[in-house]
Amino acid sequence: MSPSVLFWLTYVPCLCLGLLCLLFVSFWSSHWHGGFSWDGSDLQFNWHPVLMVAGLVVLYGNAVVLYRVPFTWKQKKHTWKLVHAGLMLLVLLLSVLGLCAVFDNHRFFKIPDMYSIHSWVGICTVIMFAFQWLLGLAGFLLPCSPLGFRSNLKPVHVWMGKAILILTVASCISGIDEQLFFTLDGIIGKPYSSLPVEAKFANSLGLLIVAFVLVVFGILSKNNWQRPETDNESVPLVLNENST
Amino acid sequence: MSPSVLFWLTYVPCLCLGLLCLLFVSFWSSHWHGGFSWDGSDLQFNWHPVLMVAGLVVLYGNAVVLYRVPFTWKQKKHTWKLVHAGLMLLVLLLSVLGLCAVFDNHRFFKIPDMYSIHSWVGICTVIMFAFQWLLGLAGFLLPCSPLGFRSNLKPVHVWMGKAILILTVASCISGIDEQLFFTLDGIIGKPYSSLPVEAKFANSLGLLIVAFVLVVFGILSKNNWQRPETDNESVPLVLNENST
Repeated sequence: MSPSVLFWLTYVPCLCLGLLCLLFVSFWSSHWHGGFSWDGSDLQFNWHPVLMVAGLVVLYGNAVVLYRVPFTWKQKKHTWKLVHAGLMLLVLLLSVLGLCAVFDNHRFFKIPDMYSIHSWVGICTVIMFAFQWLLGLAGFLLPCSPLGFRSNLKPVHVWMGKAILILTVASCISGIDEQLFFTLDGIIGKPYSSLPVEAKFANSLGLLIVAFVLVVFGILSKNNWQRPETDNESVPLVLNENST
Repeated sequence: MSPSVLFWLTYVPCLCLGLLCLLFVSFWSSHWHGGFSWDGSDLQFNWHPVLMVAGLVVLYGNAVVLYRVPFTWKQKKHTWKLVHAGLMLLVLLLSVLGLCAVFDNHRFFKIPDMYSIHSWVGICTVIMFAFQWLLGLAGFLLPCSPLGFRSNLKPVHVWMGKAILILTVASCISGIDEQLFFTLDGIIGKPYSSLPVEAKFANSLGLLIVAFVLVVFGILSKNNWQRPETDNESVPLVLNENST
């Protein structure tokens, strides 16, 4: 089987898993928790899982494997660098909005912030991601970036990219767990331990997120799916305007 | 700085972080939860976090980076294959005992098993690990293993090795979260949301586990820290007795 066919046989399921994660998290918030609003109530909280999964899982995972898609290799790398950076900026925006959703809701109900390990790992994820975005901008897009800095930054950028995905999975799984214990065990209805339909559905969302991230890691691990590097691509974007 | 010095500057903190994880998880169970026993009570449950962190985090992480330690390169690879497989067997034993600790405790108190996303991800981790161990034995140690199978298995083995670490982090973080909500919010004492000393301590354990795993990923990501391959090492163990 050619590397290209094998790539698409992995990439298409990756796209489908990402789409399923989005559908599942949106359905969970809208069907069992009353939908969305931006007024500090629990309907604002419902944006939190949706924005986090849409941003730091689905969009981030797709932006990470962008350079692996073979049709992007025929075009200038700096075009795809801009698309990569733009998608990551959108991830940052979605995750900051996702944090605002939960902080506003906590302020509304006078619930303390940042006490659980879910919140500690979650905030570390967003801070690490913001730092990674700024470092990436400085190293790979700014014209004044020294070549030495760029070449030293690349392995760190790759390692931090994977680290963010690992932190994201841990944040999502602990977040789903917390949310189900709060909502199912706190009020009238079947407890989490009796595995009502909502619990099965949200647990399945957790498994879908794990599966999506593992497929992303699988795509990243195949060396022959990497974009072939040419010498004139190894300089920062603005110096690289005429490269092909 | 030479690659070897940089390796030790990463590997020693990795060992220290692993040791700290062990100390923290043991202290958490013994100081705040009354220590250990094997009688179905909550003292038996206390073995669960300790055995899981000792096995699937600390021992597993160290066994994964074993081939990166430069002094192992001077010796026969099959010796270190046996050490790697032996350590992984110990991980399997510890994690099965860790599961027995929690299942026995649930049976004792008539608590349902396997309902939370923590338990779903956790059991997937152990099953994937057991499967990986058997595949590794069949592919890399058995004399009858075909070379084609072995070479195809290697990238899958590497990817699954990382996947298990990712699942482990998600299981640990969600497990710490669950345990703190159960014990701090269920009985007399300060709730989790007021961040009592136990909560700060257990959250710190979570961050230590994350830091340990990220350092392990950092070690794995450096290509020039890989054991140099020689041709006569690319055959299964028992055919490889005379290699140097």
